[in-house]
Amino acid sequence: MALIKPKISVCLSPSLIHLFDIQNAIVVVTDVLRATTAMIVGLDAGLDHIVPVLTVEESKSLQDQGYIVAAERNGLIADGFEYGNSPVKLLKANLLNQKLAITTTNGTKAIKLANDAHKLILGAFVNISALAEYLKKEQKDVVILCAGWKDDVNLEDSLFAGAVVYHLMPKFSVGNDAAFMSSRLYDTAKDDLFLYIQNSSHYNRLNKMGIEDDIRFCMKEDQSRMIPILKEDKIYPFKG
Amino acid sequence: MALIKPKISVCLSPSLIHLFDIQNAIVVVTDVLRATTAMIVGLDAGLDHIVPVLTVEESKSLQDQGYIVAAERNGLIADGFEYGNSPVKLLKANLLNQKLAITTTNGTKAIKLANDAHKLILGAFVNISALAEYLKKEQKDVVILCAGWKDDVNLEDSLFAGAVVYHLMPKFSVGNDAAFMSSRLYDTAKDDLFLYIQNSSHYNRLNKMGIEDDIRFCMKEDQSRMIPILKEDKIYPFKG
Repeated sequence: MALIKPKISVCLSPSLIHLFDIQNAIVVVTDVLRATTAMIVGLDAGLDHIVPVLTVEESKSLQDQGYIVAAERNGLIADGFEYGNSPVKLLKANLLNQKLAITTTNGTKAIKLANDAHKLILGAFVNISALAEYLKKEQKDVVILCAGWKDDVNLEDSLFAGAVVYHLMPKFSVGNDAAFMSSRLYDTAKDDLFLYIQNSSHYNRLNKMGIEDDIRFCMKEDQSRMIPILKEDKIYPFKG
Repeated sequence: MALIKPKISVCLSPSLIHLFDIQNAIVVVTDVLRATTAMIVGLDAGLDHIVPVLTVEESKSLQDQGYIVAAERNGLIADGFEYGNSPVKLLKANLLNQKLAITTTNGTKAIKLANDAHKLILGAFVNISALAEYLKKEQKDVVILCAGWKDDVNLEDSLFAGAVVYHLMPKFSVGNDAAFMSSRLYDTAKDDLFLYIQNSSHYNRLNKMGIEDDIRFCMKEDQSRMIPILKEDKIYPFKG
């Protein structure tokens, strides 16, 4: 009997997620700049769990229940909150045994869209090797869900998706053309991700806001072994 | 006053077209394998006009009105018709002054979705230089609409989109990350498009149907100066 390899597919925009059989796949949600990066390093710094929410109003209600709140809209901290989606700023807080509620322009929406996945985990460059090792062990079909920017395809999430494909080859088969395309892009970019990302629209959007430190942080591979995992609408730490 | 360049954006899937301001842009619909290629060379071979239709039933009714019918579903000729979307086979017919009705899995749907564009034209590798020259003359924002495969992103249409971006730089500005990404992909592929396309899922789908001649034909640049243009639900010839 021939060995059938699991497939890795890339969903380049949340608007396309209905095309994928996520109930039978591990879905890796990514929002490299900056939501999933912040969640990975936040859990690594001791957060007990994270609740992703869609609206600023919901975050306020969780704040009243003792949650730290991170609320970002259009790259900025939402009015009335201390934290947005900056991983660098979040790490300055004492996160040990705290709970975080987070709402962001793209990332938290992508998590909600895929919550009937077989398993939903979070990825970014900061945890890529741990993530790739985990996926190789699981031997299950994988869908990388790129959060994108307001439903359009973006460069940084596509590059990350390509990095995962690149790491899983040849143990997985390529599930769709987007997986092949993104891995080719990563191959041309991997020697200097920070330089390459300066071509992205979001880099230019963010850089005008003066957060180059954050962007450098988000593009640096392998800073964490943390693999955040969704269980009943909350995201818990899991060490790969 | 600084000169403002027109923008070129790439819409990688018909499911994303609502994100683009097509009423103020020239939309180039592409379905390289094989619908738009067939329509370009069909008009070049003398077709008076083409009517894109969504259903096989509609094509039957146009057949009764004297139209030649091309009907493809899932890469095959639809039951009861002589032509599918093969450009090579279509060119064997006498097309002079004839009218063609066409329905295909992806391409005709993409045309229908964008029919409120400022202007809608058809592109493929066979007419790329004429198309790029036309767009440079028009000096209007451009959206390349990739027909894709059943709403997912595909390699061949993305590569073509990248080729258009590549040709229009630096006279246009990059409108979204998908435009940048596809132009980088085209840059890695351009020396041998036929070889590169063998990585696509659709190549493998079609090649099993034994139509390598068609694929070679579709990947060969600059065989025609024809730029098909949509006017009131019909596609007419326009020579660039």
